[in-house]
Amino acid sequence: MSKKRCRIGVVAPASRMFAEVAQRVPALATSLYPDRTPEIVFHPQCFASHGHFAGEDETRAQAFLEVANDESYDSVWFARGGYGSCRVVEAVMGRLTKPSRRKTYLGYSDTGALLAALYRDGFEAVAHGPMAQDILRDSGDAAVARALAWIVDRSPEALERSVGRVQKTAAFNMTVLSQILGTPLQPDLDGHVLMLEEAGEALYRIDRLLFHITSNAEIRRVSGIMLGRCSAITPHERDFGMNEEEIARYWCQRSGIAWLGRADIGHDAGNKIVPFGARPELPAMNT
Amino acid sequence: MSKKRCRIGVVAPASRMFAEVAQRVPALATSLYPDRTPEIVFHPQCFASHGHFAGEDETRAQAFLEVANDESYDSVWFARGGYGSCRVVEAVMGRLTKPSRRKTYLGYSDTGALLAALYRDGFEAVAHGPMAQDILRDSGDAAVARALAWIVDRSPEALERSVGRVQKTAAFNMTVLSQILGTPLQPDLDGHVLMLEEAGEALYRIDRLLFHITSNAEIRRVSGIMLGRCSAITPHERDFGMNEEEIARYWCQRSGIAWLGRADIGHDAGNKIVPFGARPELPAMNT
Repeated sequence: MSKKRCRIGVVAPASRMFAEVAQRVPALATSLYPDRTPEIVFHPQCFASHGHFAGEDETRAQAFLEVANDESYDSVWFARGGYGSCRVVEAVMGRLTKPSRRKTYLGYSDTGALLAALYRDGFEAVAHGPMAQDILRDSGDAAVARALAWIVDRSPEALERSVGRVQKTAAFNMTVLSQILGTPLQPDLDGHVLMLEEAGEALYRIDRLLFHITSNAEIRRVSGIMLGRCSAITPHERDFGMNEEEIARYWCQRSGIAWLGRADIGHDAGNKIVPFGARPELPAMNT
Repeated sequence: MSKKRCRIGVVAPASRMFAEVAQRVPALATSLYPDRTPEIVFHPQCFASHGHFAGEDETRAQAFLEVANDESYDSVWFARGGYGSCRVVEAVMGRLTKPSRRKTYLGYSDTGALLAALYRDGFEAVAHGPMAQDILRDSGDAAVARALAWIVDRSPEALERSVGRVQKTAAFNMTVLSQILGTPLQPDLDGHVLMLEEAGEALYRIDRLLFHITSNAEIRRVSGIMLGRCSAITPHERDFGMNEEEIARYWCQRSGIAWLGRADIGHDAGNKIVPFGARPELPAMNT
């Protein structure tokens, strides 16, 4: 293992992080890595507040850039999702400098808009996986331990089981991917296994999202779709008549996209790491 | 006025229509047009049920085609929205015949997916406006009377006030437009005034929808955006910090799209008619 102490900067491009996360996550990191505890720096912006957001758009963009462009950080780790990443992508992407390109980026849900833009721009260590505030979930320590295992050691055990068995992977929240389709943020997913998860939506909306995603000509070039967990499905006045897997199979069949089964991702503590693109060389921190 | 009795076929490409609509709408039509009562035929499919939908996909597509391709009908009027139009568009568009092209099509909300496809395919009398089931709304008679005034007489009083003052118009529910962006259903709205309304969404979702819509390069070629009513906005854990008009102005400013003020459309009885494209010649039924 590397003697270098991993330095992780946490920023919140969407909603504000809960304050206790900044105590619990470093405490867990200390217990997991007593001899080489990663330094986890929570940017003050994580605690800022502006309406729905963790500070104004420019505040959030600036915090992201301060960490991403700083040589001393190894990783940009997102504090949490919520909503707001799409508002800062343009400002962020236009001002990234060379030190930003070698870093690990990790997040999911709303932050998928930023992951997409980074991946599209050729960043090589962008991954879908747990965020700092996941420590507040049931068994959330496991999620954060997995995120750290990926950031610190590129631990293969942290990966979704299909990663490495297929050529390329990508993962998104369905709504977040839907809301960047047809925009300059849409990444090229040609030949990727696309894993999709959702949380807090009604089944008819999951159906509409999968109509949207699978109707996009670029998306139809993926090598297949895997369905992650769809949690906290909201009730609707009428039973939809299909569950989420039946819906996903239906739209795969209609669109000619290969159905590749279930993916081990979701808005939960079991959310595994899915790197964007080909599986990176392991382990990165030893080099 | 024309001696010909207008014949209107009602179909439900999305959710099932409430049965009482089939009594109340013809009764209103009789009182409004005692000498030339339009014949309003509710296709039996309006009352069918399959999970969330007014019958299976093929049942709904077939009903639409039976009316659209039948010479004896002057108009295809949508019974209601809900969800499901996007599922039948492909089957419908592939089987339309010549008699379908001269008809009036009227609907909004979920049926916008069909309106978009028809308009994209060159249909000339596609409009956004009240549906049969709007008669169940507060003051719903006014909505249905307006729809009939448009279908039967192309009454200029039924139109949104900007129609005819600008070169071209189009109108959509924000979510429905968002969910066809980047798909083969996305219509060419170059030079159109685009009117957008929403119902039952949280402000952060309206913000995300307007990010999506205004980030699309094709949409940026509209001549401007007008904001219809955003009704039944759902509460969220945090106050968003902007109202729907501030959000729309923000995204217009960011995207370089002209902000053209408010539009008189929405999920309500006041919902005015917005034809797709240039204002049609008036009145069509006299020719």
